[in-house]
Amino acid sequence: MRRINLAEFQFAIFTSILILFGSASGLFAQTSGKTPKQPEISDFRLENGLQVVVIPDHRAPVVTHMVWYKAGSADERIGKSGIAHYLEHLMFKGTSNVPAGEFSAKISEIGGQENAFTTTDYTAYYQKIIPSALEMVMTYEADRMENLTLTDETVLPERDVILEERSQRIGSNPSAILGETARAMLFKHHPYGRPIIGWEHEMLALTKDDAIAFYDKFYTPNNAILVVAGDVTREIVAKLAKATYGKVKRRAEPGERNRVQEPEPIAAKYAEYFDKRVTSPSWRRTYLVPSYNSAEGNDAEALDILAVVLGGASTSRINQKIILGDKNATAAGSYYQGGAHDMSTFALYGVPRGDVSLEVLEDAIESVIADLIKNGVSQSEVDRARSRLIKTTIYDRDSQTTMARIYGAVLAMGGKIADITTWPDRIAKVTAADVERVAGKYLKKSRSVTSYLRPEVTN
Amino acid sequence: MRRINLAEFQFAIFTSILILFGSASGLFAQTSGKTPKQPEISDFRLENGLQVVVIPDHRAPVVTHMVWYKAGSADERIGKSGIAHYLEHLMFKGTSNVPAGEFSAKISEIGGQENAFTTTDYTAYYQKIIPSALEMVMTYEADRMENLTLTDETVLPERDVILEERSQRIGSNPSAILGETARAMLFKHHPYGRPIIGWEHEMLALTKDDAIAFYDKFYTPNNAILVVAGDVTREIVAKLAKATYGKVKRRAEPGERNRVQEPEPIAAKYAEYFDKRVTSPSWRRTYLVPSYNSAEGNDAEALDILAVVLGGASTSRINQKIILGDKNATAAGSYYQGGAHDMSTFALYGVPRGDVSLEVLEDAIESVIADLIKNGVSQSEVDRARSRLIKTTIYDRDSQTTMARIYGAVLAMGGKIADITTWPDRIAKVTAADVERVAGKYLKKSRSVTSYLRPEVTN
Repeated sequence: MRRINLAEFQFAIFTSILILFGSASGLFAQTSGKTPKQPEISDFRLENGLQVVVIPDHRAPVVTHMVWYKAGSADERIGKSGIAHYLEHLMFKGTSNVPAGEFSAKISEIGGQENAFTTTDYTAYYQKIIPSALEMVMTYEADRMENLTLTDETVLPERDVILEERSQRIGSNPSAILGETARAMLFKHHPYGRPIIGWEHEMLALTKDDAIAFYDKFYTPNNAILVVAGDVTREIVAKLAKATYGKVKRRAEPGERNRVQEPEPIAAKYAEYFDKRVTSPSWRRTYLVPSYNSAEGNDAEALDILAVVLGGASTSRINQKIILGDKNATAAGSYYQGGAHDMSTFALYGVPRGDVSLEVLEDAIESVIADLIKNGVSQSEVDRARSRLIKTTIYDRDSQTTMARIYGAVLAMGGKIADITTWPDRIAKVTAADVERVAGKYLKKSRSVTSYLRPEVTN
Repeated sequence: MRRINLAEFQFAIFTSILILFGSASGLFAQTSGKTPKQPEISDFRLENGLQVVVIPDHRAPVVTHMVWYKAGSADERIGKSGIAHYLEHLMFKGTSNVPAGEFSAKISEIGGQENAFTTTDYTAYYQKIIPSALEMVMTYEADRMENLTLTDETVLPERDVILEERSQRIGSNPSAILGETARAMLFKHHPYGRPIIGWEHEMLALTKDDAIAFYDKFYTPNNAILVVAGDVTREIVAKLAKATYGKVKRRAEPGERNRVQEPEPIAAKYAEYFDKRVTSPSWRRTYLVPSYNSAEGNDAEALDILAVVLGGASTSRINQKIILGDKNATAAGSYYQGGAHDMSTFALYGVPRGDVSLEVLEDAIESVIADLIKNGVSQSEVDRARSRLIKTTIYDRDSQTTMARIYGAVLAMGGKIADITTWPDRIAKVTAADVERVAGKYLKKSRSVTSYLRPEVTN
C-alpha cells in the first residue's frame, strides 16, 4: 500500500504549512469571493467521546472519510520507538470479525482509495469513496477501532516491512540520516527527538504485545476524531456515525498529553555528516520555536510571515540575495513547521552552486538573517507575504481531502476549529514589528542545530 | 552537609578513572611488594539479597561503612529527572523510628564523618567511624532502607536546596552549562544524556510521591551493596549485618537494568556556548565509547592506556606537542571514563594559551590524534602508560574509603569483584596494537561532540 512519506509530511518544505494551516484562508476567501458559498462546517461529539467533524462539499459525488487518533510517535513509551507507525501498518491485518485484507479489498472494489499516516502527534486512516459506500467504510473502520486481532503470523512479517521502510526512507537517504541526528539534537529531551519510524535497534525488538498495548491505550473513541468531507450532510453523517462508531466502547482514558518538555536551549549546535552517496553538499539550520498550539500571542502567525519574507517565495530575501544576486546557491529558503502539539521548528536551508562552500553559503544566509534582525522588515514585505500565503491556500479548497486533513490535524494536535476559521484574521493582523520581534526572539544560533551534509572524501 | 560534587565525580579528569578502576592494581601490588599482605576481601549475600563486601584493613581503628543502591539518575522515570539525587537528600529526613537529624547527630557525637552521592548508575551513603560504632551505624542505615518517612514539611524546603545546588553547580558555571548540553547531544537517546541533578523545570515539579515511588522501587536489600572496609573482620560484619540489614524485607524486585540503548552515532556534533563569565575559552571533545562494563574484548583497558599515551601524563603526546612544544595551550589532555553500566566517554580537552584560538588548538589536538592513528604507538609508550597507571594507583590502598568506593562502584555498575582483582593483569596484557585498534575504532569525529566555550562578545 502506498503510504504518505513520513519524512515528506513532517519535514515538507512550505507545502505542509499550507496543508496544516493555510487552507483556512481558502475557506475564508470563499465566503467573500465569487466562488459558491461553502456550507457550514459542523462538529459534535458522540456519547462515547468521539469528536465528529463534517465538511460538506457537493461539487462531486465523492466523500473523504478520515479517523484520527491523538497518538503519534511522541506518545510512545521510551524504548518502544516506532510502535505508533508499526501499529498503523498492523491496523490492516484484520479484526475478530474481518479477515486481513477484506476492508482494503472492499474499497478497491468500489474504485475507492485508502491510505494511512503516522506523525509525531497523531495517526490517521482515510478513504476516498463514493457516498453510498460511507456506511460500509464506517462499519469497517469502527470495527477496527476496538476489535483488532493480531497474531505472530501477521505481526512478525510486517516488522520486516517497517524495517525495510526505514532502510528505504532513512538508510538510503543521507539527508534523512543526518536529519535524524539533527532532530535528536534539537529535541534533546522532548520525544519529538525520536524518529517517527523508530530507532532501528528498538524496531527490531517490537512485538505484538507492544502494538496491542499502544492500541489499548490510545485507540478509543474518546481519543479519536472522525472527519467526513464531501458529498454528505451533517444529518447523514450523524446518523451513520451513531449507528457504527456509536457502538464502540470507551476502552481507555488517555487524557491530555503530558509529555516532557524541552529545556531552554543555550548552545549553538552543529552536526556534520559525510556520505559517499551525497552528490551535492547541503546546509540546513533548524531553530527550536513554538508551534501554533504552544505559541504565546501571535508568535506563530508572525513566524509564518517571517518564513515567507525570509525565504518562502521568489521575491523573498534569501532568494533575491543568495540565489539570484550573489548566485551562491541553486536552492535556498526558509520554512516554518507550525503544526505540532508542543514545540516546533523553523528552518533555513541551502544547496551551494558549483564550488561554493557550505561555509560561504552559511555566511551569506546568516548575513541575510542578521540584516533582517538589525534593520527590520518593511510593511510591504509583510503585506506581500500575507497575500502570498492567502493566495496559495485558496487552491486548497479544491481538495476535499486537504480540507479534511487540515481539520483533522489541527484538532489532533490540540487545536480548535476556531483556530482554523480565525487564522486569516490573525494573519492579517501581523505587523512588521511582530515579524521583527519573532526574528530576534527565535532566530538565535543558541536555539539552533546547523547541519552540514557533505560527500565523503575518499583517499 | 558537604556532599561530593556530582560534576567532579562524574566528569573528573583522570582521578576518577583511578578511583573506579585503578586501585585494583594497588591491592595487587601489595601482595608482591614490601607492604604488609592485605587480608582477604570477602563477599557474601544475606538471605534478603543484600550483597556484602568486607575489606579488612587493620592499620588504624577506623571503619568505612557504605551502602550502595543500584539506582541512579539513569534509572529515573522520564520526566522525573533529579529524583535520584533529591531522594539522596531526603534520606536524611528521618524514618518512622528516627527523627530527622538524629542519625547525623550520632555520627557527629562520636567524631565520625558521613556523606552521600548520586551518579548516573548508583546512589551511595557512607560513614567513617570508630569500629565500636559500626552496629549503631548499621542499625540506623538499615532502618532508613525501609522506614523512610517523608512529609511535605521536610520535602518541600529540600527541593529549594537541590534547586540552589543546581544553580551553584550548573547555573554559575559556564563550563557545566555547556557540558550539560554536550552530554545530552552525545547521549541523544540513552538516559545518560540527562543531567544527574535534573533538568530545572522538572526538578521544580518533583514531589514527595515521586521520591517515595523511586525509594519503593529501588531501595530494597536485593538492590543494594553493603561495603565495610577497615578495622573489622568478616565474622563481625557478617554477624552485625545479619542482625541489622538481615531484618529488612525485600520490598521490590527491580531486576536487571534494561535501559534504552544509544543508536550508533553517525554525525560529528558540535556545541558552541558564549557566556560573559567565561574568562578563558576552552575546547573539549567527547567520544561515545564503551565502558568497562559494556566493552568487548579488552577495548576498555586499551582505552585507559590510550588516554595516558595521548594526554594523561606530562610525557604524553598532547602535553609534549601542544603544551610544551608548540605552546598552544596552558592545559590540555585526555581521559577515559571507564566506569559506567552502559556506554561511556573518552574526552580530549584544551585551554588555549594567550591569543591562540580554539580552532588552532583544535587543529593541533586533531593532528596529534591523526598522527597516532596513522603511525601507531610504540611499545615503550604503552609500557610507560601502564607503569604510570599502576604506580599512581598504589597510593589508593592508603585510603580505606577509596578502596570501599572502588568495590562498591564496580559492583553497583554491574561488575564483579574479579573485574577489580584481575584488572592489573588485563592492563598488563594491552599491546600497542590494541591501543592503535581502539584509537582507530573510537576516536572518530562521527562518534563525538566537540564543545567550544567562549567569552560572550559584548557590543
